[in-house]
Amino acid sequence: MKKIFLSENDLPKTWYNIAADLTSAPLPPLHPGTLQPLGPDDLAPLFPMALIEQEMSMEREIAIPDPVIEGLRMYRPSPLIRATGLEAALKTPAKIYFKYEGVSPAGSHKPNTAIAQAYYNKQEGVKRIATETGAGQWGSSMALAGQIFGLEVKVYMVKVSYNQKPYRRSMMESWGAKIVSSPSKDTQFGQKILAEDPDNTGSLGIAISEAVEDAATKDNTKYALGSVLNHVLLHQTIIGLEAKKQMEIAGDKPDIVIGCVGGGSNFAGLAFPYLRDKINGAEIDFRAIEPSACPTLTRGNFTYDFGDMAQMTPLVSMHTLGHTFMPPGIHAGGLRYHGMAPMLSHVVKEGLVDAYAFPQIEVFDSAALFARTEGIIPAPESAHAIKGAVDAAVEAREAGQEKTILFNLSGHGHFDMSAYDAYFAGNLTDYRPTDDDLAAGFASTESLPNAD
Amino acid sequence: MKKIFLSENDLPKTWYNIAADLTSAPLPPLHPGTLQPLGPDDLAPLFPMALIEQEMSMEREIAIPDPVIEGLRMYRPSPLIRATGLEAALKTPAKIYFKYEGVSPAGSHKPNTAIAQAYYNKQEGVKRIATETGAGQWGSSMALAGQIFGLEVKVYMVKVSYNQKPYRRSMMESWGAKIVSSPSKDTQFGQKILAEDPDNTGSLGIAISEAVEDAATKDNTKYALGSVLNHVLLHQTIIGLEAKKQMEIAGDKPDIVIGCVGGGSNFAGLAFPYLRDKINGAEIDFRAIEPSACPTLTRGNFTYDFGDMAQMTPLVSMHTLGHTFMPPGIHAGGLRYHGMAPMLSHVVKEGLVDAYAFPQIEVFDSAALFARTEGIIPAPESAHAIKGAVDAAVEAREAGQEKTILFNLSGHGHFDMSAYDAYFAGNLTDYRPTDDDLAAGFASTESLPNAD
Repeated sequence: MKKIFLSENDLPKTWYNIAADLTSAPLPPLHPGTLQPLGPDDLAPLFPMALIEQEMSMEREIAIPDPVIEGLRMYRPSPLIRATGLEAALKTPAKIYFKYEGVSPAGSHKPNTAIAQAYYNKQEGVKRIATETGAGQWGSSMALAGQIFGLEVKVYMVKVSYNQKPYRRSMMESWGAKIVSSPSKDTQFGQKILAEDPDNTGSLGIAISEAVEDAATKDNTKYALGSVLNHVLLHQTIIGLEAKKQMEIAGDKPDIVIGCVGGGSNFAGLAFPYLRDKINGAEIDFRAIEPSACPTLTRGNFTYDFGDMAQMTPLVSMHTLGHTFMPPGIHAGGLRYHGMAPMLSHVVKEGLVDAYAFPQIEVFDSAALFARTEGIIPAPESAHAIKGAVDAAVEAREAGQEKTILFNLSGHGHFDMSAYDAYFAGNLTDYRPTDDDLAAGFASTESLPNAD
Repeated sequence: MKKIFLSENDLPKTWYNIAADLTSAPLPPLHPGTLQPLGPDDLAPLFPMALIEQEMSMEREIAIPDPVIEGLRMYRPSPLIRATGLEAALKTPAKIYFKYEGVSPAGSHKPNTAIAQAYYNKQEGVKRIATETGAGQWGSSMALAGQIFGLEVKVYMVKVSYNQKPYRRSMMESWGAKIVSSPSKDTQFGQKILAEDPDNTGSLGIAISEAVEDAATKDNTKYALGSVLNHVLLHQTIIGLEAKKQMEIAGDKPDIVIGCVGGGSNFAGLAFPYLRDKINGAEIDFRAIEPSACPTLTRGNFTYDFGDMAQMTPLVSMHTLGHTFMPPGIHAGGLRYHGMAPMLSHVVKEGLVDAYAFPQIEVFDSAALFARTEGIIPAPESAHAIKGAVDAAVEAREAGQEKTILFNLSGHGHFDMSAYDAYFAGNLTDYRPTDDDLAAGFASTESLPNAD
């Protein structure tokens, strides 16, 4: 392991907006009732105007406000690390670098956008943020960000996680957030679900619906989302912008850029600043790695679909397994999403980014190898990127090529040790949806507008 | 929060040995059979000669070997952070700085010595390390260090922790260590205990005895200890040596230096380099903070005592509650030790360092305040140092003095969230041993040599 640090003064002052450099534009989001392209006013009940403007901006560089930079300084710039131990173990001529986002207090890249979102809400007089969380990564990041800017944060936490992950809950409480098990009695939608089925264990779709209702109906309250949207991907580009400065210090340029994908934000955060170079002629191989259990990019359709199971969100054009697709309970909970960020889907469709899917046992094999050679125990989500890097390094060895590989280690696994427990005990199973499983999911999008 | 980083090149090249600067020497350890001062040969079955030499060295500066520096670079230099958020919340004119050791892969300061110990063992041809662990901090640090230098590591983990802390166990497994629940069938001592009481839940005393037996009887195997010994404290001085460089960059000097104490190594690591300045005339107020539940320095006797309950170790002169004293199950498991590092006990006895004890609910109040204002969730052990710093900052406010406070944040609390759960749920209780409890512990040292 060899680290390349930046000083605080090297923290980027602007985010990079890839919309300015794309030669073709993604299709616009549609209002689910009218099927007309969404305008800023449609989003105003949920988001502050500054974020809506970023969502639709065509400016290449967007200034990061000073108080956001101040907040990010809590853990940024994050280190770029050369994985010399992993290289040696793989006997590869490739150089492997990774950007380590686990240094944030919440343990992942999520605060990069949570801090920005909290700031813009605070600026526009918002007092409360309502949001949802599954495994807890996003909820804890929003709790932290709310604490920084003095916003109240209410987190609707999927009931099964609320009961199984008390530690993430305590973390959010440590940062002053209010957490409720979803479905809850705090919203009409939650009450309706509970009346029909008091034992409902909840889902991300239900939790989103509750948070959106809360934001739309309560005073001084807005909603916040941790992935998928353009402004979220924008805020994450600080990862790639820092990485470029650090790779320059290292005297290297990546031939292959790798990240795991669930909603797409950590991959986009590292990749988009480099994708600009590819659009301008550089030869870079981009690899988005997803779980075989939820193969959105590798086996999904590209079409308009709802972002949530409850069909409350706008229709967006993306790769999707269908909004009714229910991924099995793999340990990389953050990658269990039926859709994908529209901006990332677009560049995959354009052939700029390739997608790969791996089953979880192979992913944990790579995670264990990484822990032994580099000392860091990765989050199961981030381990997908490691698996991608290991395969690329083995390819380089077999081809006798001195490739330079860069991947994003989006978080540590300190709150996922039960997954390692299961892995070391030989209790993990792999899962791939059957064609019938996929067909059932796709059926839910049949009546929606075609995006091709 | 404002961070002061050092570059990798600023990593100290030598450790600081306080023995060279003390005006009076601590009493020597005694052989438990002969009651004569121990010689190097008495320790040779357990430790490599290089560590035995460090244990007895009077040299002021001891060079850190290059491979140890390389290993420490995995996470060092650690950041020095100005706790501006905590200062604001306390409305204090004091400046509060802390050194953050939670950045190590194991999450605490323990790898600082584990890496050095693994190196010296490797150098002398040792193939295996046997050690014990209670809560798991030390065992995981030794597992990591063994991985770095290619040593097999066998950890005897106290059975109650083995069952209650599967995550720490998985962490050690991730780093390739072999873990066994203690009492185990792997040693004669363990077999004897199990024969008498198959349901014995284990203790640190039993686990130490098993690890020592393993090291003394198995080929190419030595023993390793994570605190108390002089060479352990020596290796931890890298914390204070870095802090001095960073405080210089910040343009400040500490008036008050604070750390939590269990065995004493993290406190000594930060404090000893500054204690040298006090010996040379500087005015610095040193505060060692311990739990009221295990008040070794504040209510213990200074006498010769065994380091372990099983009476296997040499007799050392220290503050002690008696080797039979059984501290209650507070959440700061790393501070539940009946004795104290002899070198730290000595400087407390000499009046160079003051000791304070706090009950755990007040300690968690400070931990929660710190998490909200600085973003980092501290280990319950480290939270004792925060409580000390909070009290010092409030004193400064009340006296209207611009004091500079420096404390050691020895680790994060990611593996202790159940303690925060209990705290937020109002389920923590305070505990102070009664005079009768203490008298019973002291009785176990009555027949041992007096150290006064």
